[in-house]
Amino acid sequence: MKDQLIIFDTTMRDGEQSPGAAMSRDDKVRIGRQLERLKVDVIEAGFAASSPGDFEAIRSVAAAVRDSTICSLARANENDVRKAGEAVKPAKRARIHTFIATSPIHMKHKLRMEPDAVLEAAVKAVKLARTFTDDVEFSAEDAVRSDVDFLCRIFEACIDAGAKTINVPDTVGYSIPEKWGELFKVLLNRIPNADKAVWSTHCHNDLGMAVANSLAAVMNGARQVECTINGLGERAGNASLEEIVMAVKTRSDLFACTTGIDATQIVPASKLVSTITGYPVQPNKAIVGANAFAHESGIHQDGVLKHRETYEIMKASDVGWGANRLSLGKLSGRSAFKSRLQELGISLQSEEQLNAAFARFKELADKKREIYDEDIQALMSDEAVTPDVEHYKLVSLTAHSETGEQPFSRVVISEDGKEHRAEARGGGPVDATFKAIESVVQSGTELLLYSVNNVTEGTDSQGEVTVRLAKGSRIVNGMGSDTDIVVASAKAYINALNKLGHKTRVNPQYGEATTTV
Amino acid sequence: MKDQLIIFDTTMRDGEQSPGAAMSRDDKVRIGRQLERLKVDVIEAGFAASSPGDFEAIRSVAAAVRDSTICSLARANENDVRKAGEAVKPAKRARIHTFIATSPIHMKHKLRMEPDAVLEAAVKAVKLARTFTDDVEFSAEDAVRSDVDFLCRIFEACIDAGAKTINVPDTVGYSIPEKWGELFKVLLNRIPNADKAVWSTHCHNDLGMAVANSLAAVMNGARQVECTINGLGERAGNASLEEIVMAVKTRSDLFACTTGIDATQIVPASKLVSTITGYPVQPNKAIVGANAFAHESGIHQDGVLKHRETYEIMKASDVGWGANRLSLGKLSGRSAFKSRLQELGISLQSEEQLNAAFARFKELADKKREIYDEDIQALMSDEAVTPDVEHYKLVSLTAHSETGEQPFSRVVISEDGKEHRAEARGGGPVDATFKAIESVVQSGTELLLYSVNNVTEGTDSQGEVTVRLAKGSRIVNGMGSDTDIVVASAKAYINALNKLGHKTRVNPQYGEATTTV
Repeated sequence: MKDQLIIFDTTMRDGEQSPGAAMSRDDKVRIGRQLERLKVDVIEAGFAASSPGDFEAIRSVAAAVRDSTICSLARANENDVRKAGEAVKPAKRARIHTFIATSPIHMKHKLRMEPDAVLEAAVKAVKLARTFTDDVEFSAEDAVRSDVDFLCRIFEACIDAGAKTINVPDTVGYSIPEKWGELFKVLLNRIPNADKAVWSTHCHNDLGMAVANSLAAVMNGARQVECTINGLGERAGNASLEEIVMAVKTRSDLFACTTGIDATQIVPASKLVSTITGYPVQPNKAIVGANAFAHESGIHQDGVLKHRETYEIMKASDVGWGANRLSLGKLSGRSAFKSRLQELGISLQSEEQLNAAFARFKELADKKREIYDEDIQALMSDEAVTPDVEHYKLVSLTAHSETGEQPFSRVVISEDGKEHRAEARGGGPVDATFKAIESVVQSGTELLLYSVNNVTEGTDSQGEVTVRLAKGSRIVNGMGSDTDIVVASAKAYINALNKLGHKTRVNPQYGEATTTV
Repeated sequence: MKDQLIIFDTTMRDGEQSPGAAMSRDDKVRIGRQLERLKVDVIEAGFAASSPGDFEAIRSVAAAVRDSTICSLARANENDVRKAGEAVKPAKRARIHTFIATSPIHMKHKLRMEPDAVLEAAVKAVKLARTFTDDVEFSAEDAVRSDVDFLCRIFEACIDAGAKTINVPDTVGYSIPEKWGELFKVLLNRIPNADKAVWSTHCHNDLGMAVANSLAAVMNGARQVECTINGLGERAGNASLEEIVMAVKTRSDLFACTTGIDATQIVPASKLVSTITGYPVQPNKAIVGANAFAHESGIHQDGVLKHRETYEIMKASDVGWGANRLSLGKLSGRSAFKSRLQELGISLQSEEQLNAAFARFKELADKKREIYDEDIQALMSDEAVTPDVEHYKLVSLTAHSETGEQPFSRVVISEDGKEHRAEARGGGPVDATFKAIESVVQSGTELLLYSVNNVTEGTDSQGEVTVRLAKGSRIVNGMGSDTDIVVASAKAYINALNKLGHKTRVNPQYGEATTTV
């Protein structure tokens, strides 16, 4: 009988720290439901002390998800731990994950604390966390650059204080598998009460080795891996959940453990996270990239098909490719739509919202023959049905392109109900539209990113546009989808402007406002 | 004094095997020049026997590049080796890379050869290759699933036959670092003449471990790594050149070797390959993703900036970020434009082509304030200046979007000089445009992918559209760029249609036509 490898998903916490990837409460509930379908063991739903909005989001995920443990991050201080404890209270199984930095560079320059004080804060936080739940995890931030003797001391003390999981992060993505495996071997051998805790690894991908480092830790006794869908996360991201899971499964000859993950939910999870965060997945990404199984995903290459087994170590269907489920059609009624939303983990606050969403669904069904789950996800990510207060709304748009002439756009925007009309010319219809919108709102923002994804295949697919705007130190992603790319772009731009109006959130590592709810 | 780690770039061979990533001769010369600036040691420019077009492309790269060794792939047969030898002849330093599969599954099902016959073919190919150049490399395809005793036998024989480099590929992306390192240790210990060859590793990324596996080989004696820009390559791709190089550089405390790479050319190389192949790079890709150094790339996050050194193991400028070079402006003349093209490795065949390109540059400069190198690269990737025979051309386009109405497009297409006019309505202006084009050309193709990238930041940036079309077993990527996204889409679609008219190429592994020149 093999050990179980605990899959700890931090898409909604570390993943959310990607610029502009902040998620609303509803976004988190939808992702949480999908992670539950994926059978993730632990879902880190956020960082409760970062903002009232994130606190509420964690509570909502804790209330909505039954099969996975729900966790909140907390710095090693009383306020953070209490907030985390409150936030995860509705969960069937709740975890508090408290952390403090242990490397000389972090203790000196960031914390300005002596090692003994750091150890004391850690122990105190673990003990306080235990008053909320038995399931407490402790992390030593920047363990990769920490002194091993000090790590042994602090981990031993935290296990004594009641931590059930000890997480060892490569915060800066600096290690290589051989060294990372060795560190686990040393820790597990030297710490007298090491057998009283589950050992966990949390790796970043700055040098492209997050997955290999995580697996080296598993080879040396780690039984929890912290990872994210699509490898989302700060900078080059975290270890990819899908790569970890499929490596352990495909190379079951090498690993002494198995995961409880339902791998057929990997591709739907990847698409949902990409849709909600606006972070695309490159075609040559392992497992979830469009080409990862290019032989099979609708591309007809005789030469490849003939020799399939010679080049195949996994099946596309094993990870959920090709399961594009025809969801609803033009004739589907309101109750079928509502129950499909529920199955997808999308909850609407009121009948008005359901009515608005259903009207938009019917509108889409008029333009597009087949409606897939992805289309519904995109539809529901769209600004028009988000529950947040909307300062600006797109009332109408006309755009015209003609080779040899300057493209032109005319928009009508409502600002708190009052309509403004504007027109502009630009390099293209999208540029003209953004200029027309800016002539009304004069936001003073900087456009950092403009990206387009197709929701499904085919020319009548919806385009999903992400617009990333910066204003001062604030960065937001706006999203919009429509079969018309110019309309989708306008919606995304306005969605971003509306998000800029919301409150800021504290980043757990830096301890300062960096992202927005 | 540390050993040199030879960087062998196969972006133009293995990378080109990605669906639709086929490169023209001019594309290959441009990439070759950039790889030379990057100071890549060996450039695998293609597979000479695959098609007359690729043969010519390799010859052109061999003639254009002076500082890197130029290599062609060849199956272990006389025709392939002769073609490779001819193709690399113009090179200052030429290499032939011959290979044959050595795993039971490949020998039995694909080659239908006994191991002894495989060994004999390998030795014969190496000896023949040596009549063309002293620099011969031998690869054992699917080494990862081959019998180690047989690998030892065939490698020893190939070294005796004159191979100077022995490459060990993980063809299916199946290994993990510990095992891959062990394999190199065994091979180098057991093969009596192992010290007469440079040992090389070639890893695929199906389980996300290509880079870590390559570096485990280096830790165990390999002194050549085969890799690609952006990790491009079949399925989940190859080991990323940029990750390999920066890992060895950043962890110089762990590696007994250094590379000769000029890392500041990494980001320009990444952008060029992305532009030419139409393969985008995801934001959370290590080193070359837009977020890899999010702290620094134009995003102003006070909290991060304050603690920069606490979270930074590399500098963005070390790998060429922020070197966005203001290239030319509205007032730049024809000779400045020409010399900038030459610096970028872009060669035009005739004065007419230069004039056409210059006219397009002026047109762009009218629409866009600042012209960067990326803009020029995109401009030159555009169909209007490609030297290939163009069956179809876009003469003019009018597109109109209006909320509440069905978008509309009118196009005029010339087919071998004869103009056709068509109009259509669709889900959006792009859909309507594609439908209008199809009503003229009736290609019977299937749209597999539609993607948009921004060439530079800002709303007046050019959009670069990639359209992937399939017809039967043929797949092509078409590209188009314009400040108007609808016009760029039309250009990309027509570019793809024109490419479908060209000859097919043989895939080295499958031995059958899979991609097009």
